[in-house]
Amino acid sequence: MQREKLKQAAQIIKNENIDMWLTLVRESAMNNDPVLPIISSVDFTALSAVMVTKDGRSAVLAGNNDAEGIRQTGIYDKIIVYGDDFRHALADMLDKNHVSTLAVNYSIEDVASDGLSHGLFLLLQDVIEISASKPKLISAEVIISKLRGIKSQTEKKLLIQSIETAEKIFQDARGFIREGVTEKQIHEFFTARTKHYGVLPSWQASQCPGVMLGPQSVPGHNAPTEITACKGDVMDIDFGVLQNGYCSDLQRTYYILGDGEDRACEEVQRAFDTLKEAIKRTKEYMKPGVTGEEADAAARSYVVSQGYPSWNYALGHQVGRMAHDGGMVLAPKKSHNKSRVEQPMEEGMVFTLEPGIATSRGYVGLEEMVYITRNGAEFLSTPQQEIYLLASDSPEHQG
Amino acid sequence: MQREKLKQAAQIIKNENIDMWLTLVRESAMNNDPVLPIISSVDFTALSAVMVTKDGRSAVLAGNNDAEGIRQTGIYDKIIVYGDDFRHALADMLDKNHVSTLAVNYSIEDVASDGLSHGLFLLLQDVIEISASKPKLISAEVIISKLRGIKSQTEKKLLIQSIETAEKIFQDARGFIREGVTEKQIHEFFTARTKHYGVLPSWQASQCPGVMLGPQSVPGHNAPTEITACKGDVMDIDFGVLQNGYCSDLQRTYYILGDGEDRACEEVQRAFDTLKEAIKRTKEYMKPGVTGEEADAAARSYVVSQGYPSWNYALGHQVGRMAHDGGMVLAPKKSHNKSRVEQPMEEGMVFTLEPGIATSRGYVGLEEMVYITRNGAEFLSTPQQEIYLLASDSPEHQG
Repeated sequence: MQREKLKQAAQIIKNENIDMWLTLVRESAMNNDPVLPIISSVDFTALSAVMVTKDGRSAVLAGNNDAEGIRQTGIYDKIIVYGDDFRHALADMLDKNHVSTLAVNYSIEDVASDGLSHGLFLLLQDVIEISASKPKLISAEVIISKLRGIKSQTEKKLLIQSIETAEKIFQDARGFIREGVTEKQIHEFFTARTKHYGVLPSWQASQCPGVMLGPQSVPGHNAPTEITACKGDVMDIDFGVLQNGYCSDLQRTYYILGDGEDRACEEVQRAFDTLKEAIKRTKEYMKPGVTGEEADAAARSYVVSQGYPSWNYALGHQVGRMAHDGGMVLAPKKSHNKSRVEQPMEEGMVFTLEPGIATSRGYVGLEEMVYITRNGAEFLSTPQQEIYLLASDSPEHQG
Repeated sequence: MQREKLKQAAQIIKNENIDMWLTLVRESAMNNDPVLPIISSVDFTALSAVMVTKDGRSAVLAGNNDAEGIRQTGIYDKIIVYGDDFRHALADMLDKNHVSTLAVNYSIEDVASDGLSHGLFLLLQDVIEISASKPKLISAEVIISKLRGIKSQTEKKLLIQSIETAEKIFQDARGFIREGVTEKQIHEFFTARTKHYGVLPSWQASQCPGVMLGPQSVPGHNAPTEITACKGDVMDIDFGVLQNGYCSDLQRTYYILGDGEDRACEEVQRAFDTLKEAIKRTKEYMKPGVTGEEADAAARSYVVSQGYPSWNYALGHQVGRMAHDGGMVLAPKKSHNKSRVEQPMEEGMVFTLEPGIATSRGYVGLEEMVYITRNGAEFLSTPQQEIYLLASDSPEHQG
């Protein structure tokens, strides 16, 4: 997997006319560069440099204690062990490779491309000072954004597996949720099913799933509470699993039927239908070349046109090894995200679409995952078509 | 725990006459600051600032989606939610607190104090530009180094638990290792016992334990191989567990008896005795005020005086939430570690002592853990006094 990704990186570097991409790390178990798991399968315990050059070759400059472990992985074309002086050893590498444009992992806007610590940036300045080639530093954002964003067929399959497992657990929950259960109990149920399927939660366990039950619950990233399901409550569950290194991230809407009800109340139903339609329209609009800002506007303008307020977060984000996988994002332009929303989508990218509407019965949320094809977009998840109705007196409404 | 550590941080800040300590993060599940688990129990999903001021108060500037989850933790005195403009919100915080000296997490030498990414450093420069107070930036290395290094009594107890569990597993292995077992089988045995005790490996699972068996095995951080235990082989096992958030890191020496042997061969025995004596002498030398360079020299000069070469790595490192816990280190001074080896040790710090000697029968290594008291040092581990002798034809030599 890492060797494949390094080949992909070399191709991107060549296309972008960059001489070398350098990932500089040390004691990576403590302070990781988020791109490292994509290009290495071991932790480094000393100052180390992972290099990809535009001739398609990869190399690691490593401490002597790490060298054998790196060699065992078989990932890199070359492993060079330095003695006491990392700075001169790295300067030599820059000079030998005639590097005049050097891409390193920093970005003001994209966390996934911002793995270089400021201390190591200062060290790198020393290295450039003593090098003969004195390369120009540029951000590796364009490399990392494509490398993480554009999924191989293997990666796409792994994402679908992870989605299918999460969808099974959402279905399992229909047999458990009923009047009287608390947010905490629902969280425990999902946690037990996650273990049952031998997978991990897609993000921080205490907040995965996020359970937003009824009008008292606070939307967003927080832990479940003692809030109890009552007749007429709507509930949004935000959940995903990490399976074989890849994540899913979905939201599903459940409704506790009131006495005599055989469908959700009109207010909730209309909100759900609006979200479903917004996702459908946006998915039909998405294709290579569409920017994140444009995709966000497509969904947001539809929801607002139906008389609802605009939600105060992004329409969607990429998914991969992390639930929020960095790079391009589907959101309105703000001071801090310009490069992330102006980027055009490309074939092979995977996004969530997750608009939401607050109602008097609770928060209604829907989140689907889509894959960008050559000419359009396709759902990776199976879109929720109907609210999951739950009878207040039985595990599931049979109507 | 985090609230206690924030109080400790406030005290350090006051003593150092720093106005504010700022930890700047975003999407911390992807790109973590290594100090974050010490001062937060949740992941952040948006740009966030954790602040400690010299009046002893803590605050978080958080995105609206994270605020409720942060409030639930009860860790901070104040939570401020910003809208769209993080930069101005943070500049306001600096101005309101009259901050003229601002400590942030960067360090060329200490990875544990270098959690600020270069992209966020650039963003912080913008914030300072728009602030009225225009604070001077300094490295938070002095804060983080003390915060991580000086253990509370609770932390000391947790470290001892973690050591005791690792020691049990080292003892269990004496009933398993014999002539004919491979490095991989030994690794599997330790992995199974680690699971049995309900704990995790102290570092990367594939290299924990590190097994260095016989003269062919490569010392350092690498995965076990098919190398098989033969009569007369000496073996070093480098292992520790992560239990309740705290790590152990120890090395033990085993010897496969040859035909007719009832003790290790003289070459191995003499190397072992030399290491044991070096550790004992160094432990007796250590006390508050001794520098890392001095402690390293105490052990190294003794081993060299016995006719052995100097080993090419540090004598020891600190241990805490990580097996290599950053900050002060016991090592010879080099171009990249000046601030880390010139620092004096303080009461409450925990170090490994791990010299090693290569012999014709394999690598002999010993690693103990010591705690710095007011007047000296005490062992947290139970020092290995004798080589663990293993009969070649039975699980353990009974002599």
